[in-house]
Amino acid sequence: MSFSVVTRELTVNTRGKGTYELTRELRGFVSASGIREGQLTVFVRHTSASLVIMENADPEARTDLHAFFDHLVPETLPFLVHTYEGPDDSPSHLRMALTRTSEVIPVQSGQPVLGTWQGVFLFEHRRAPHTRKVTLSLMGTTDPA
Amino acid sequence: MSFSVVTRELTVNTRGKGTYELTRELRGFVSASGIREGQLTVFVRHTSASLVIMENADPEARTDLHAFFDHLVPETLPFLVHTYEGPDDSPSHLRMALTRTSEVIPVQSGQPVLGTWQGVFLFEHRRAPHTRKVTLSLMGTTDPA
Amino acid sequence: MSFSVVTRELTVNTRGKGTYELTRELRGFVSASGIREGQLTVFVRHTSASLVIMENADPEARTDLHAFFDHLVPETLPFLVHTYEGPDDSPSHLRMALTRTSEVIPVQSGQPVLGTWQGVFLFEHRRAPHTRKVTLSLMGTTDPA
Repeated sequence: MSFSVVTRELTVNTRGKGTYELTRELRGFVSASGIREGQLTVFVRHTSASLVIMENADPEARTDLHAFFDHLVPETLPFLVHTYEGPDDSPSHLRMALTRTSEVIPVQSGQPVLGTWQGVFLFEHRRAPHTRKVTLSLMGTTDPA
Repeated sequence: MSFSVVTRELTVNTRGKGTYELTRELRGFVSASGIREGQLTVFVRHTSASLVIMENADPEARTDLHAFFDHLVPETLPFLVHTYEGPDDSPSHLRMALTRTSEVIPVQSGQPVLGTWQGVFLFEHRRAPHTRKVTLSLMGTTDPA
Repeated sequence: MSFSVVTRELTVNTRGKGTYELTRELRGFVSASGIREGQLTVFVRHTSASLVIMENADPEARTDLHAFFDHLVPETLPFLVHTYEGPDDSPSHLRMALTRTSEVIPVQSGQPVLGTWQGVFLFEHRRAPHTRKVTLSLMGTTDPA
């Protein structure tokens, strides 16, 4: 078999709190790599943004996701001490810790095996716009299975 | 070294909310693959079911897991708007986002390196029975270490 | 390309609840492996300890992390039934389920692609000291990209 590793860094410009879909970029990256069977790792290089795989059909599902995290980790938690970077800083780390930094998606026949309704999103937890770096790493074979 | 990738899709028929153990299927898949050193990815292809690694000795540990998620993400959260598929739909996405969609387990000497008490479970978040697809992807070498 | 898999088990002696940084050990392991392009999997072999990637600049960020998990999953949840191993046992499984058991970090030019502020920590959830096993698995090529 002919194995290879292909790595690429995505830049995502966020416009404040919310979810930003990466699915099209992931599919394009896998397709362009020529790798047919393997494993795709998605890794966020930050501690105040994370990854989440969510339903991407009805945007209301993500409205509920955003509202839920504001409810579960409010910016007003009275015991927080790491506050000098603003009230949204420590909550952003907590929301990141509750979701994911890395996600690994099997690749089969040159496609990530995402389910019909699965989209991959960057989850921005800070209020201000940020430039986020997401590393994509694909390892596998260019031969058919 | 002789590298290969082996992929298989598991079908899990769930009977409503709860955890369904996959550990035996994972061990059987790794064993049958012939791969001795590598990495096993487990990936759930849904947004209302997830993965969790839990103690598999005392079933009461999982009773507490189920009760805790009913407590942390109740079906009665007043701010949810994505409700037309039933009161358990949006909470199922939130419970999925708080647990895992992918899990990667190192494989050594032809065995996943799970700890003594670790079991891998599909975590079903919907009330109704569902047919769930879980992709197993094993990449590594058939040579001894 | 010249592929290989390198696996090593780290032992971490914990002194009760809290986070224990593993970043230096991960970097040393990757560096010593000779692998330049690939994927590093970190896997905790326990159900009452987990992994978390957190800011490692200001220790107050981790103070907030510890306080938040005491708040989110208190040891006094009235519905817990798995209590014979102590009040911190079932909460430790729940805190583990909300964080991560495996984390995969791309390796590029012989270095894990961690962001500037990202540290990898073992998250101990039990009060008593424990000896924890963390498996590191690195798969990739020794050739330059």
